Amino acid sequence: MTTEPSSGNREFHHTERTSAEELEEFALGEDYQLNPRFVDMVVDAAEADDAPRLTRLMDALRPADIADLIGFVPADHRDTLVRVLSPEQFSEVLPELDEQIREELLDAFSPARLAQAVSGLDSDDAAAIVEDLDEERRDAVLAAMPAPERAAVETSLAYPEDTAGRLMQREVVAAPEFWTVGQAIDHLRAAPEELPELFFDIYVVDPAYRPVGAVAVSGLLRYPRGTTLSELAQPVTDFSVDQDQEEVAYAFEKYRLISAPVVDEAGRLVGQITVDDIVGVLQEENQEDILALAGVGDEGRDATTWGSTRARLPWLSVNLLTGLLSATVISGFSGSIEKLVALAVLMPIVASIGGNAGTQALTVTVRALALRELNASNAFRLVRRELRVALINGAVLASLSAVAAGLWFSDWNLGAVVAMAIVLNLLAAGAAGALVPLTLGRLKQDPAVSSGVFVTAVTDVVGFFVFLGLATLILL
Amino acid sequence: MTTEPSSGNREFHHTERTSAEELEEFALGEDYQLNPRFVDMVVDAAEADDAPRLTRLMDALRPADIADLIGFVPADHRDTLVRVLSPEQFSEVLPELDEQIREELLDAFSPARLAQAVSGLDSDDAAAIVEDLDEERRDAVLAAMPAPERAAVETSLAYPEDTAGRLMQREVVAAPEFWTVGQAIDHLRAAPEELPELFFDIYVVDPAYRPVGAVAVSGLLRYPRGTTLSELAQPVTDFSVDQDQEEVAYAFEKYRLISAPVVDEAGRLVGQITVDDIVGVLQEENQEDILALAGVGDEGRDATTWGSTRARLPWLSVNLLTGLLSATVISGFSGSIEKLVALAVLMPIVASIGGNAGTQALTVTVRALALRELNASNAFRLVRRELRVALINGAVLASLSAVAAGLWFSDWNLGAVVAMAIVLNLLAAGAAGALVPLTLGRLKQDPAVSSGVFVTAVTDVVGFFVFLGLATLILL
Repeated sequence: MTTEPSSGNREFHHTERTSAEELEEFALGEDYQLNPRFVDMVVDAAEADDAPRLTRLMDALRPADIADLIGFVPADHRDTLVRVLSPEQFSEVLPELDEQIREELLDAFSPARLAQAVSGLDSDDAAAIVEDLDEERRDAVLAAMPAPERAAVETSLAYPEDTAGRLMQREVVAAPEFWTVGQAIDHLRAAPEELPELFFDIYVVDPAYRPVGAVAVSGLLRYPRGTTLSELAQPVTDFSVDQDQEEVAYAFEKYRLISAPVVDEAGRLVGQITVDDIVGVLQEENQEDILALAGVGDEGRDATTWGSTRARLPWLSVNLLTGLLSATVISGFSGSIEKLVALAVLMPIVASIGGNAGTQALTVTVRALALRELNASNAFRLVRRELRVALINGAVLASLSAVAAGLWFSDWNLGAVVAMAIVLNLLAAGAAGALVPLTLGRLKQDPAVSSGVFVTAVTDVVGFFVFLGLATLILL
Repeated sequence: MTTEPSSGNREFHHTERTSAEELEEFALGEDYQLNPRFVDMVVDAAEADDAPRLTRLMDALRPADIADLIGFVPADHRDTLVRVLSPEQFSEVLPELDEQIREELLDAFSPARLAQAVSGLDSDDAAAIVEDLDEERRDAVLAAMPAPERAAVETSLAYPEDTAGRLMQREVVAAPEFWTVGQAIDHLRAAPEELPELFFDIYVVDPAYRPVGAVAVSGLLRYPRGTTLSELAQPVTDFSVDQDQEEVAYAFEKYRLISAPVVDEAGRLVGQITVDDIVGVLQEENQEDILALAGVGDEGRDATTWGSTRARLPWLSVNLLTGLLSATVISGFSGSIEKLVALAVLMPIVASIGGNAGTQALTVTVRALALRELNASNAFRLVRRELRVALINGAVLASLSAVAAGLWFSDWNLGAVVAMAIVLNLLAAGAAGALVPLTLGRLKQDPAVSSGVFVTAVTDVVGFFVFLGLATLILL
């Protein structure tokens, strides 16, 4: 056997293959981020409108990376990239795209093409895409979908957003209790095309189709064919279609669930939620909390200038109002400031340290509430701890600033006033930081939203009032 | 067959069962949180040292709920609760406990009892518990463990913290490419006790034991017994033992992985990571980010007063220093303030709005970095957008505050100065909020840590300087 004749060919194939692999390695860094130089190559190809080059570059990427790439290139090149995707790539990239980018891109596609793209997806992914379309286009896309897929998406959309019903996929594997492992396996093999793309549990159902347990798929492989499912079934945590997705995510995390059945009002199995959907929900909730704490509303990745402005202006306006409140407090002590201008110099320190301490206490409390580590059993302990922390931090910071102020202005009474004001303001900060979110939580409001502005309003007003008031009493 | 004779018995069983179920329903609210009244019942039983009552109450709970309960009761009752747990319960509750509480509790247990408890766990869970012990006790516990479990834990502990090697479990299922579905299933059934408790993928390995693909367990059930694994294998994302867990978590989220193989330096399969471990890592990273943004260091759920103080005092001290910097700026304009005390009244508004806008921009940037939505390709676009947002928000807030200040002090020039200062400070806030975390990120520092204090230092100094400077130039 000679290798010579085909070696040219092999060499070519080899190079082709290696370079595709090399391209993939070049495209993604160690940390799974797109290499900016790879993004530049794509932008160049898009500018040259070089479809074959774009195809070659994007074929090196997985759907989630293509979605990232579309986010990284300037907005006017996104259409070009999407146009060269194969129908399969297009379908797989869609659920991975940032919502805002997806909405912009989809305007360019016909309902028929969209219908084809979403029909290949699990019902939860398909519904998530269809729900964002405006009503007219949504109806057109649904009308162009095959009947079973349309029915699945329509059922999904009938549940309110952020519920288990919306989150679940309808594709699910169920078996009666009296079946054996062998029967279950044979049944699965008989109609593989009806199975979900991926599943982790078989739900054991009673005659009314209510889930009474779950058998892990790996369990089916571990036990002899004659074992009945009822012997293997483990207790199952089920969710009702109208449950809030945040609660579902919390239960998944707490009980380390991989998949769980969803039941309707009558307790009948209607779908399942899998942990990969939950990871998305958890990240979403965390994102909402962290932005809300900073006083930023709903602002997506590719928010336009206008979107960002709308997300931020409301809290800045409230901040202006609370600023005017502080200004009113200061204005009440104008006479004192005229007599001793050092008060104007030092007063922002007292307010600022209070504001930061309040934000610390607030954040810790909001997190504990989000992680459900706090309730009536230990809320009082938390407030006490915050006050003790405020006393210790206050003692340290008050001493430091008393010395600084005393040396600076050669006035030890002024130093003492700064010290007292800092301790009192830190106590106010600790109390407000713990009590404001606890109270909002008890009123069934999201404690992450709006707590910040209340707490800093308290520490500003208390800081200025206590410092200027004590100074007026003691120094003037 | 008469049912009469046994009906008393059945009635009793029924009641027993119902009341246990009712107890469970009572213990956990709709939102999977422990009912404070249930916690009170447990505290009562612990105070009465009533072991049977405690056992009955805790038997209604799952391990994760028992761990929560231990967190909710006052510290001096925790030992009592743990003492009544069965060995199985104790073993299952351990990995669910908050780290700090676990450390405190474990001091009371003999190395032999601990060794028994951790031997029943997957190697990753066992290692996570053993690593927290002090060296002497760690050695004693390891010595008391059966040899195979000890070896697994020791190997795990040999990898640095927060790496894939530490996160993985060594229990894994692998098969050669040429096996058929039938062979794989028969092999699994032959030695079920050697299988991981739960698994989702079978890794297909080459003769050097390098993973070349994965077959989902549900795939084994979907295809005929004669299919070879190489036909079914899907490409696999593998991780090396020394990879950072944060990168692993990011890849799991991005590619929606359920489980993934971990390989050693030679590329050989040595373990696997499953998505339930990743959920914990993601929550940990989010928690770190959110606390770091608020200037809180590592502060756990049950931080003592002293722990919380240590976590917060450093940033408050830095805040005191930046506060002194602002005070120095103000002090440079003492003369102006003496002439026009309204400046002291209004200056905190300018600084405070700037600080809030800076925190908003900062938080959005830190999140985009954490979600890897930002790199050299679009960083410049982000900075430009922040400046545009600052201009629009600045225009709105400046007009409002100019009117407020003008009316209040009947001085429209003063209003104009406030307006200009706010616009300039918002521009500084937008630039600092975007550039500080981007720069820290480029320097391979965590952008969530310490960004906040830099950004507010900028907005304070710029705010006071611009407002007082313009006022001195224009009004005096």
